[in-house]
Amino acid sequence: MNVSAKVERIEANGDVAHLMKEMGQRARAASRALALAEPVRKTAALKAAAQAIRDNTSAILQANAEDIAAASSGKLTDAFRDRLSLDAKRVAAMADGVDVVANLSDPVGSVMAAWDRPNGLKIERVRTPLGVIAVIYESRPNVTADAGALCVKAGNAVILRGGSESFHSSRAIHRALVQGLESQGLPADAIQLVPTRDRAAVGELLSGLGGTIDVVVPRGGKALVGRVEAEARVPVFAHLEGICHVYVHAAADLEMAKQIVLNAKMRRTGVCGAAETLLVDRAAAATHLKPLVDMLIEAGCEIRGDETTRATDKRVVAATEQDWSTEYLDAILSVKVVDGLQAAIDHIERYGTHHTDSIVTNDTKAAEKFLSEVDSAIVLHNASTQFADGGEFGFGAEIGIATGRLHARGPVGVEQLTSFKYRVLGTGQTRP
Amino acid sequence: MNVSAKVERIEANGDVAHLMKEMGQRARAASRALALAEPVRKTAALKAAAQAIRDNTSAILQANAEDIAAASSGKLTDAFRDRLSLDAKRVAAMADGVDVVANLSDPVGSVMAAWDRPNGLKIERVRTPLGVIAVIYESRPNVTADAGALCVKAGNAVILRGGSESFHSSRAIHRALVQGLESQGLPADAIQLVPTRDRAAVGELLSGLGGTIDVVVPRGGKALVGRVEAEARVPVFAHLEGICHVYVHAAADLEMAKQIVLNAKMRRTGVCGAAETLLVDRAAAATHLKPLVDMLIEAGCEIRGDETTRATDKRVVAATEQDWSTEYLDAILSVKVVDGLQAAIDHIERYGTHHTDSIVTNDTKAAEKFLSEVDSAIVLHNASTQFADGGEFGFGAEIGIATGRLHARGPVGVEQLTSFKYRVLGTGQTRP
Repeated sequence: MNVSAKVERIEANGDVAHLMKEMGQRARAASRALALAEPVRKTAALKAAAQAIRDNTSAILQANAEDIAAASSGKLTDAFRDRLSLDAKRVAAMADGVDVVANLSDPVGSVMAAWDRPNGLKIERVRTPLGVIAVIYESRPNVTADAGALCVKAGNAVILRGGSESFHSSRAIHRALVQGLESQGLPADAIQLVPTRDRAAVGELLSGLGGTIDVVVPRGGKALVGRVEAEARVPVFAHLEGICHVYVHAAADLEMAKQIVLNAKMRRTGVCGAAETLLVDRAAAATHLKPLVDMLIEAGCEIRGDETTRATDKRVVAATEQDWSTEYLDAILSVKVVDGLQAAIDHIERYGTHHTDSIVTNDTKAAEKFLSEVDSAIVLHNASTQFADGGEFGFGAEIGIATGRLHARGPVGVEQLTSFKYRVLGTGQTRP
Repeated sequence: MNVSAKVERIEANGDVAHLMKEMGQRARAASRALALAEPVRKTAALKAAAQAIRDNTSAILQANAEDIAAASSGKLTDAFRDRLSLDAKRVAAMADGVDVVANLSDPVGSVMAAWDRPNGLKIERVRTPLGVIAVIYESRPNVTADAGALCVKAGNAVILRGGSESFHSSRAIHRALVQGLESQGLPADAIQLVPTRDRAAVGELLSGLGGTIDVVVPRGGKALVGRVEAEARVPVFAHLEGICHVYVHAAADLEMAKQIVLNAKMRRTGVCGAAETLLVDRAAAATHLKPLVDMLIEAGCEIRGDETTRATDKRVVAATEQDWSTEYLDAILSVKVVDGLQAAIDHIERYGTHHTDSIVTNDTKAAEKFLSEVDSAIVLHNASTQFADGGEFGFGAEIGIATGRLHARGPVGVEQLTSFKYRVLGTGQTRP
């Protein structure tokens, strides 16, 4: 029975729970093989997968055309079409991305810490794979390649559940990844793609498949992440929103503040590290506020300001209470004048999402207080919030940004997809 | 209204959910103050708490006598009475334990890693508190002090939920801890004790109190840990069982093997790091098996063996399939002869609990394979499994041993009760 027939049978019988349980068991078995695979084999498998993506460009584009055609029968926004669409250049970039991951240094087995005990025991803390990761994503087909490669590099098995709109594209890309694994004798089950569009599959993954899933990574919009965070019975690496702040302190250099604010808001407005709120210290408002507001409006940014900000320019819209906790992901910025450093920190703690926040100041003591007291995954001094990205941190690649406090926080790269164990080396020691 | 009256009212109204929610909110608020507290204040508060325990010894013993009297009306095993009972020596040891934690180096703010980026950004990964920790335990009243102190040292707020049998003892100890906090102006809510014996309080804690609890730590027997793992909607640091193995390899020195096996099984049989299964390589069985079995039987250990083991001594009981996955926590050991290193690893992966496993061998290559392939939190070479303890690792104190793969694995000390954030130091950098 071919895959399509099998999937049709499953969907007809509603036997998604059984299908998912089987996938979980196969993933667990494959994770053991992956955990023990020599680094060179994982690297070679991923390079072969990159090449298989290139070799299968036309098949991938054909599958993508099927998805686009199917989606076009419904409502299709330009942004949605852009996320879903592949072309030869995007496929090439996807393959290059897999090569980048292939060439990252292998985290498994690296010694994180080592120390000796008075009784002569030598203790090492070494990285191990996490186990089995479920990645649930939406319409971007390239996540199939990115997430699959990153999980495998860290020695994990992964179950991918792509959006139903990119079903055929993801399947074609997945086939190439499996070719890569098989070329090195690694188990195909190390990267599985959920073969049904039945939404019940997501519920099954979130249940943890009876202890088979170690962590779930959602990649997509707020609705997806919110559902995953609410329903998951296993740990989740994610952020729901990135309400990122730039705080222009009393001792901020105006030119630096302008560059950082413009970049933080306008470089790309749709990324999670984009600034959504500008806080200007009252002590700097007379000199800094109007130039900042003017610059932003000229750059095409809508400003929603408090009373002081509105007084600088009649084009400033009145901010509502809701604005301080809104992630626009658009050329809109809320602007507030605050009474000093503590008020800025209090605002961020009240309205922020513990993602990424920046202070602009030449006062290192003020910066130190901000960096210590703002409880966000990433805190910056004199730098743009748009650096909130695993690549910019030097991680090579990331599967997303996490705002939780457990295990992974900030950019989730290949090291954050590992666990660890303790190796204790003795010469016959017994405990008194 | 005093506490008792308030609690009685709550129990009468069944309003435990409301009580717990309030506790969660107070803990979250206190966690912020704790996170920002200077290290010297936390140290001084814990030292004051230790002194308050000493100063209140008679009140604590009186409360404990109440608990013992109440428990004595029901069935009371010797082991249970021993866990529940305090005397002046035990109270002094508890206070000393709090002093030990007070003197640990403060993990908050320590730089775990630091690196520079080509664009001049300096990135630091620094430790931060986790937030709010719930500790759910059974009859040992000293956990109140141990767990409370360790959580506070790491800058966290903690909600303690002790066993109903130790209710009065825990309350008296808790009062001393709060005295310590208040002596340094730290919020009393940083260490809260659930004031009702209503079991619904546990369910509320396991729900996470609407996102207020960051992690749950159960301390107690298998029934408690099992319930917590099954019901918790938040991450759990725990181990359900410690089915620990000692594998005597073909190239093991017999004398060393004897010492390690005897210590691993018999030093203390009730700890989670005690060995429960001995695997002897068939290649060493002729020389090593009988001496090991004889030694253990002479030491008062019951042996449940496979056929080969039974042939060495008629006092060996026949092991059933169930024995290989039984945590005896008693002077009983299951013993099996295995066909080589791979078979030993396969047995441990099949029946073990990913806690602590040891190989005895003079063959470093065999040891390396064992340490790499056994997927346990702690793997040892030529050392006793009873070293599975935070104190023995040099952590100063521990809240337990975790076998999960997320965040904390192995002994959970003060560092494992922290999270981290990224500090990014710039000079005006913007992202291209």
